[in-house]
Amino acid sequence: MTIEWEGKNFAEGSLLARILVDGKALTAEALSWGELFRLPSGEIRTKDSVTLLPPVVPTKIVAVGLNDKNHALEMGKPIPSEPLIFMKATSALLANGGAILHPSMSSRVDFEGEIALVVGKKSRGLSVDHALDCLLGITIANDVTARDLQRRDIQYMRAKSFDTFCPLGPWVLVGGRPDNRQIITRVNGSVRQDGRASGMIFSPAEILSFISHVMTLYPGDVILTGTPSGVGPLSVGDVVSITLEGVGTLENHVERDSSPAWEGLPSLAER
Amino acid sequence: MTIEWEGKNFAEGSLLARILVDGKALTAEALSWGELFRLPSGEIRTKDSVTLLPPVVPTKIVAVGLNDKNHALEMGKPIPSEPLIFMKATSALLANGGAILHPSMSSRVDFEGEIALVVGKKSRGLSVDHALDCLLGITIANDVTARDLQRRDIQYMRAKSFDTFCPLGPWVLVGGRPDNRQIITRVNGSVRQDGRASGMIFSPAEILSFISHVMTLYPGDVILTGTPSGVGPLSVGDVVSITLEGVGTLENHVERDSSPAWEGLPSLAER
Repeated sequence: MTIEWEGKNFAEGSLLARILVDGKALTAEALSWGELFRLPSGEIRTKDSVTLLPPVVPTKIVAVGLNDKNHALEMGKPIPSEPLIFMKATSALLANGGAILHPSMSSRVDFEGEIALVVGKKSRGLSVDHALDCLLGITIANDVTARDLQRRDIQYMRAKSFDTFCPLGPWVLVGGRPDNRQIITRVNGSVRQDGRASGMIFSPAEILSFISHVMTLYPGDVILTGTPSGVGPLSVGDVVSITLEGVGTLENHVERDSSPAWEGLPSLAER
Repeated sequence: MTIEWEGKNFAEGSLLARILVDGKALTAEALSWGELFRLPSGEIRTKDSVTLLPPVVPTKIVAVGLNDKNHALEMGKPIPSEPLIFMKATSALLANGGAILHPSMSSRVDFEGEIALVVGKKSRGLSVDHALDCLLGITIANDVTARDLQRRDIQYMRAKSFDTFCPLGPWVLVGGRPDNRQIITRVNGSVRQDGRASGMIFSPAEILSFISHVMTLYPGDVILTGTPSGVGPLSVGDVVSITLEGVGTLENHVERDSSPAWEGLPSLAER
């Protein structure tokens, strides 16, 4: 079986990456688990001669909160009766290998390893039974979250949308399904999260169907399916890696954000 | 003064629209308040011979909640000490004249007339003093909201991101500033909201500066600055129009969404 993407057919099981070659972004096939990349021209490049980008360019990133019973419990939240959806800004995307920037606005930045669905076709009103047919495949995401700001704002958006807060990749497994794959998050080599797709409260097909009854999904759109229990903070210098069975490993390190700090606004009483 | 957009210079005060001509989307200048459109080729078209699109293609739509003291009071919410930001999906964009679709998932859909800022340059970490310099200009938005779902979800995203829930336009006033412009929302001709930019808790420059310290803004990105008091429900058949002083009027009508209804998911106990 093949799946069409950007006007070409790709075999199920192939690994689609986006890479920067000589200043130009290209869709390339990762070979030998990313040791080599085959460009659209057929040319083969070694991994040292290319720069990896996030594997797709989504028009939106929709995520599901509290989709794991144990994670809902650890957050002290009731189990939702419908998928609880929110968005991360696409400007937060980060490639495999890039630095997660710890912003000065937050004093607690957490990792959240997640299975990501990548939409392959424009879709609206998908039935649960056929929802997964709209996918290009699956990949790995880190739903990085400024936990203190999430609690303060109530709205999740700011806490989850700082630049670099959505590591994604390294590539898309074409035709891949979450099935019962194991997903393991490690910080500096120690296992911190160990979950399976079967631990989700709402299945990937139910999530996709639900979202597609609210809004049209476009090719490249990314759906984060929720994180297992075990979330925790990241410090500057940490290396966080998320391994999804049969897909690969998304690895990023943490640096301090050196851009100008937010100085705050005059209090309302002073105006 | 001129402002660069898509590689061309446009005079301050000009009205930039996007239109569909012979199946192709073009940036065009609206003349005589939209009676005529000047295409990039110089050709002039009458309004009846073109289809209006939302005036820009944003990578994100960021909105500010509860940014009017009287609106915060009518919602029964405390006045926030920092801008409360959330996002609407770009798939919710609707052009002037298009139908707002009342989804079957909601039993209460509200209008919220707002001044929209349109980003003209890639921006990060803007100071309050210089924040407005990043703008292409301003336009009008309707932050349509499924009020029942907003209350139930807590997260605003679903309630505000149904397809057609972000009417925007009809055009961008190049170089325009919110200043103290009056914004009036009418339903079937009756005034429902009557506010001024000066009624905002956080000024447009403060909002832009705040958001740009969280995330990079890209050309075309849209910032909704919050709605004045007077929000209320829309019924099928209603016509909602929002007039922003010196910019124009954004008018849309309401139809029932005829796409397949969401049937719900089996309750968790049944699985």
